[in-house]
Amino acid sequence: MRAARFYGKEDIRVEDVEKASCGVGQVRIAPAYVGICGTDLHEYLGGPNFAPVPDKPHPITGDAVPITLGHEFSGTITELGPNLTFPQSIPLKIGQRVAIQPTLYCGECSACTAGVENVCYNGGFVGLSGGGGGLSDSVVVPEHCVLPLPDNVPLDIGALVEPLSVAWHAISAAPLTPDSVVLVLGGGPIGLAIVQCLKALKTRKIIMSEVSKARQRFAREFGAHHVLDPKTYDLISISKELSGSDGPDVVFDCAGVPASLKTACLAVKARGTVVNVAIWEKEVPFQPNMLVFREAKYTAVLGYQRKDVQAVIDHLADGTLQPANMITSKIQLENIVEDGIKALIKDKESHVKILVEVGGGI
Amino acid sequence: MRAARFYGKEDIRVEDVEKASCGVGQVRIAPAYVGICGTDLHEYLGGPNFAPVPDKPHPITGDAVPITLGHEFSGTITELGPNLTFPQSIPLKIGQRVAIQPTLYCGECSACTAGVENVCYNGGFVGLSGGGGGLSDSVVVPEHCVLPLPDNVPLDIGALVEPLSVAWHAISAAPLTPDSVVLVLGGGPIGLAIVQCLKALKTRKIIMSEVSKARQRFAREFGAHHVLDPKTYDLISISKELSGSDGPDVVFDCAGVPASLKTACLAVKARGTVVNVAIWEKEVPFQPNMLVFREAKYTAVLGYQRKDVQAVIDHLADGTLQPANMITSKIQLENIVEDGIKALIKDKESHVKILVEVGGGI
Repeated sequence: MRAARFYGKEDIRVEDVEKASCGVGQVRIAPAYVGICGTDLHEYLGGPNFAPVPDKPHPITGDAVPITLGHEFSGTITELGPNLTFPQSIPLKIGQRVAIQPTLYCGECSACTAGVENVCYNGGFVGLSGGGGGLSDSVVVPEHCVLPLPDNVPLDIGALVEPLSVAWHAISAAPLTPDSVVLVLGGGPIGLAIVQCLKALKTRKIIMSEVSKARQRFAREFGAHHVLDPKTYDLISISKELSGSDGPDVVFDCAGVPASLKTACLAVKARGTVVNVAIWEKEVPFQPNMLVFREAKYTAVLGYQRKDVQAVIDHLADGTLQPANMITSKIQLENIVEDGIKALIKDKESHVKILVEVGGGI
Repeated sequence: MRAARFYGKEDIRVEDVEKASCGVGQVRIAPAYVGICGTDLHEYLGGPNFAPVPDKPHPITGDAVPITLGHEFSGTITELGPNLTFPQSIPLKIGQRVAIQPTLYCGECSACTAGVENVCYNGGFVGLSGGGGGLSDSVVVPEHCVLPLPDNVPLDIGALVEPLSVAWHAISAAPLTPDSVVLVLGGGPIGLAIVQCLKALKTRKIIMSEVSKARQRFAREFGAHHVLDPKTYDLISISKELSGSDGPDVVFDCAGVPASLKTACLAVKARGTVVNVAIWEKEVPFQPNMLVFREAKYTAVLGYQRKDVQAVIDHLADGTLQPANMITSKIQLENIVEDGIKALIKDKESHVKILVEVGGGI
């Protein structure tokens, strides 16, 4: 079968590989659509970062590079392994259209036993940590990764479930009410997904800060009430003004740079909450007094839990979330590097999500 | 009357000054005991820091240096100004023994109108921001600063109400249960006050990290179950071990140095809470991923609210808090610099709290 495999920096090869067998508690999926994520770009440009290397194989999969990429995907069930426990209410069936929650966790570490498996100390992702990935004709995943898609949610939208779940998990960490004023820093795919989730919650005022004109347009389209270029506006004072009081109730940092950390901490209201959604490349300068003098909270989130993924699917089914315009391009698996990775590197800001059509169930 | 006034760096003078008049909504206090605080030391060693300077007088008091020091104090009411509203259940009376909550706030800024007057953007403190201070024979304070002491709480203990309120406010910001495991970084007066407040809540396991042998002894005496020297132990691994699971539920950073920030963020359990109680001198290096990979919260607190002060007084009255051994020395007002400030600079670690006996009501 075909698989797009990551070997190392600037080395992704679409090649022919053996199918894995479908073991105990596993389900075989024929991937339909696969989103390309910023993490995939980082691996290509400077990896292996997340991807396990031969002298340190992944503790759950036992694999190291080359690994098959693709962790944002939908597909169709083609085989059920033995001893499934069917944790979802609808039993899984062959032919069923599904979205994939790619989280891998050990179930044994102190985070897992505390019920926070999304920060499993041995954790990983299908499509990043070995054990196969969505960018292939067939992948076997643990049963817990598989969530049925309702009939009215198409497979291309199903590939957006993963980034929307990151956003849903992030907004779930914040003390939001319909009356909240929210500032979102950074209009990349996750920032735009957060805007959509906030809109789904009917949040009173959504303010987006973003430099790129293209992304500013997306932010408006997805429901931001105010879209501000931080190069033009003093975000701290204008977000206080727009809040009509002491500042935004919640600030989401989806940019993850020293300037966004500072803006988030200085813009948020007294007793407000900064939610960090970014992964940081290195240490940055930080003055905790920014939080002290407003008794603010700084909360970090990572990934999502099954309940977040199910919430996103439910809101896609009932029309509360309408993310179709996130899909800015559909490409073929063979062209993943040229039309996908390199297209994003060349013009990331015109795209929100490029989907790879793999073919399963389409 | 006598007053210990701060003029600038290494310049505190006990001199004769005029009494202020007791205006509308004010109460005159004859201070009895006044604690010397780390903030006072900082002003002496490198100030003015908090103390207002002539080209920027304090927005509430209108004063600038020289200002009278003393913000941790008890005393006796000697005069009631006109138009008091008696917010407390027991009306204030001349001769009444009281503890002072020294917070000054404007009542008009967005923090005050949001009910978070302890982070008032124009806020200050009696004894640091002008308008008189406890280190004098007489001080007039706004009515909201005055809380009656029950008969069984002596005036020297009354001077400990302020630092205990800082601690009570800090622990109130944390999601504590009697089953919590808590790590306290730094055994200065506030760290030790936090240990006492945690003990009052019957917290299951209190772990203190402190280098000084003298402070280690105080920590044990005040109720810490484990007292660890961070130079001897790997705090991150041992606090995980002592927690019997993924790490402490809550970490209080009372040290406020780069090492304590890092230890706090790496020791706390998945979804745990770091409470910063320190004021920071400057920016420090920070890697937010420390919080991301355990979805931890970093919460900052400042000062206290009236409910915290009242809770401390109630627990002093019912014997739940027994802080008498915090008082390591009692000195006279005339000797504040030699026996107080310089004694603390010379041997801070042997002291928890030096009280100045001013005389009012003793």
